[in-house]
Amino acid sequence: MEEEFPGAVGTSASLALRLGQAIFSLASLLFMCVGVEFYAYTSFCFLVTIKGLTIPWSLTLAMVDAFSVFVKRPSRQLQIVSIIVIGDWVLSFLSLAAACSTASVADFMITEASAFFCGKKLCSRYQLSAAMAFLSWCLSTGSALFNLWLLPSLYTHL
Amino acid sequence: MEEEFPGAVGTSASLALRLGQAIFSLASLLFMCVGVEFYAYTSFCFLVTIKGLTIPWSLTLAMVDAFSVFVKRPSRQLQIVSIIVIGDWVLSFLSLAAACSTASVADFMITEASAFFCGKKLCSRYQLSAAMAFLSWCLSTGSALFNLWLLPSLYTHL
Repeated sequence: MEEEFPGAVGTSASLALRLGQAIFSLASLLFMCVGVEFYAYTSFCFLVTIKGLTIPWSLTLAMVDAFSVFVKRPSRQLQIVSIIVIGDWVLSFLSLAAACSTASVADFMITEASAFFCGKKLCSRYQLSAAMAFLSWCLSTGSALFNLWLLPSLYTHL
Repeated sequence: MEEEFPGAVGTSASLALRLGQAIFSLASLLFMCVGVEFYAYTSFCFLVTIKGLTIPWSLTLAMVDAFSVFVKRPSRQLQIVSIIVIGDWVLSFLSLAAACSTASVADFMITEASAFFCGKKLCSRYQLSAAMAFLSWCLSTGSALFNLWLLPSLYTHL
């Protein structure tokens, strides 16, 4: 009855994307937080805030996808998919902003004042955190695009 | 024959958006470049590069819109609108990335090492440049959204 959109809500590709987002976000958060005084720098606080929003969002939608794949396919409703698309786009823009801020501040710390702001080990942790945040952003934009692609077909089904 | 989409290619709203993008990008570029050694910092070089891409793109599309508004309405072709939408989205993501990088590095310079990296006058110029870049990003995303909205109607006209 409904065509299959790979990557849209309720498919196994979407489940994989959501789990990937959650894992990379969690990795970014852990590299940034554990044992580091990140709250001294605005950009790093921003990253932690955004990752704290992304992880529950991705996990919730991963559970919805898992239910849809393994138990029972629910019908897709226009209102729900619209909310998911808007949330995805907003979080994707915020993720990109947080990743860029972290990456540029980490780079600035290293090139300009390496020994003063962070030791070699700490600096590379900031860089790893930024890299994980970028990977999480890529997957998040993927999800957002696939769901946006699904939207017009729901309009025409009305 | 064709419905009127406010803000899509070839309307006066689109012309206004494009001119706004070009003006804010130019302001951001001038605040960053004139008499400042911006090339010492990666993020600022990135901003200058992206603004150097955005300004010709916006001015070209502003000319197309001006022609369409004042002289003769050309028919909208799916291929051309698709290219414009893709270009708009890519430039909009890059603009956001550049604006965030500049803003976060400028903020870091001010809060952490104010007197060392930039004087009071120079720091506020960096901040102004970042603010202009954010305004230009807002208008750019507006254009991208309006053109994306137009796309499905062109598909159904085929």
